[in-house]
Amino acid sequence: MSENLIPTGRLTVVGLGPGSPLQVTPEALAACEDATDFFGYGPYVERLTLLPHQRRHASDNREEISRAAAALELAARGGKVCVVSGGDPGVFAMAAAVCEAIEAGPPAFRQVEFSVVPGVTAMLAVAAKAGAPLGHDFCAISLSDNLKPWSVIEKRLVAAAEAGFVMAFYNPVSKARPHQLGVAFDILRAHLPGTVPVIFGRAAGRPDEKIRIELLADARADMADMATCIIVGSVETRLIARDGKAPLVYSPRSWSAGKA
Amino acid sequence: MSENLIPTGRLTVVGLGPGSPLQVTPEALAACEDATDFFGYGPYVERLTLLPHQRRHASDNREEISRAAAALELAARGGKVCVVSGGDPGVFAMAAAVCEAIEAGPPAFRQVEFSVVPGVTAMLAVAAKAGAPLGHDFCAISLSDNLKPWSVIEKRLVAAAEAGFVMAFYNPVSKARPHQLGVAFDILRAHLPGTVPVIFGRAAGRPDEKIRIELLADARADMADMATCIIVGSVETRLIARDGKAPLVYSPRSWSAGKA
Repeated sequence: MSENLIPTGRLTVVGLGPGSPLQVTPEALAACEDATDFFGYGPYVERLTLLPHQRRHASDNREEISRAAAALELAARGGKVCVVSGGDPGVFAMAAAVCEAIEAGPPAFRQVEFSVVPGVTAMLAVAAKAGAPLGHDFCAISLSDNLKPWSVIEKRLVAAAEAGFVMAFYNPVSKARPHQLGVAFDILRAHLPGTVPVIFGRAAGRPDEKIRIELLADARADMADMATCIIVGSVETRLIARDGKAPLVYSPRSWSAGKA
Repeated sequence: MSENLIPTGRLTVVGLGPGSPLQVTPEALAACEDATDFFGYGPYVERLTLLPHQRRHASDNREEISRAAAALELAARGGKVCVVSGGDPGVFAMAAAVCEAIEAGPPAFRQVEFSVVPGVTAMLAVAAKAGAPLGHDFCAISLSDNLKPWSVIEKRLVAAAEAGFVMAFYNPVSKARPHQLGVAFDILRAHLPGTVPVIFGRAAGRPDEKIRIELLADARADMADMATCIIVGSVETRLIARDGKAPLVYSPRSWSAGKA
């Protein structure tokens, strides 16, 4: 008898895009067709249309590491497992959680065939709806202090504003953190002109899409909820007014001398 | 007779993804099917399979603004125009160039139906192949000093390293700029440990894909060409060794206290 009675399975972390089926890649669909067990945050797993032999393992938003470990255990026993994320799974999502579980777990986890299928992440979908606000150097920051100190977030906001990065905020608010986004805007107002455009993008590409454009001077925390992605311009980001149309927001590819 | 004899056309800037047909969204395909004229950098326009009534207008890499203006002129005369980019068109690509041309152009350009179709940008595809290096706060920087002073780029590298951002570099080198990437690595070595992982990703998702993982201490400019996207980790980015498999690189979602 062989020592390899138990075949090593595979685990694919799949990005389902911002929400519209038109923004799911063929690669993501193929990865889902080829799996039998699906792990993920409830609303993402619910997006999938499954076949009779495919099983959902939905879990809560906060349970990333236990979800990742459960998915890896099934894959290590030979399972064909998908872990699904909205947007891109590598941006504040499940790919890092699965890597953490691989590193902390038994040697068998490292032998699982592990792969990641990228997707359109929220800031790209929101930027597309507004024009081209990410057309110059930019950064992406999670505003949640569940996993890092708030002081680190404050330091990054100041560094990004002073260095001239456009910023995209993920996880801007939650029921447990309703006020931090307002603090973040206050910090930015001390380092950037009030005329800098701010985009609040919710459900970009879905029927309930809502894109709101404000100036930094007027930006407030209650303009966002936990499903909003926010883009804050740099001093060079521009608004183009258009008769009868929403304005366009874009960041020029060039940087004017002397401003940085 | 109506004053609106000339119908206003439309211009859609479409992201074709990193290169694999499996990473093109259905939305991007539908936008291309619905257009008659295609503008873009030659290799991107060449990716399209066109119908007899569809026309290619390929141009050189450096001609973004004249290409954008030509596309807008055709759309303002009633054309159904696509401007195509690799990756996502909003990240160091054609969406910002078209916005610049709209702002600088005649009023008719502002009346064109303008939209942007997002795509999987290169850093997401490269990150997916390596694990989850963009799992924590990160920034994207174009290393080209064609459109901004090199001093601004140096300032951003230092700011990003000190604030703990993972970094993705677009346009890392070109024939005219072979040495700047080496200067960038030298700057980073003065601010980050030599053990920080660096990923060189070329043609991610295509048959000629090449993913190379080095440590910052050993990273050199000649490991990249103009089609390479580079990801430089933060002090917290980790390498997971695996028997018989490429190592995984990931940035933990959490940030250890005291390091920032």
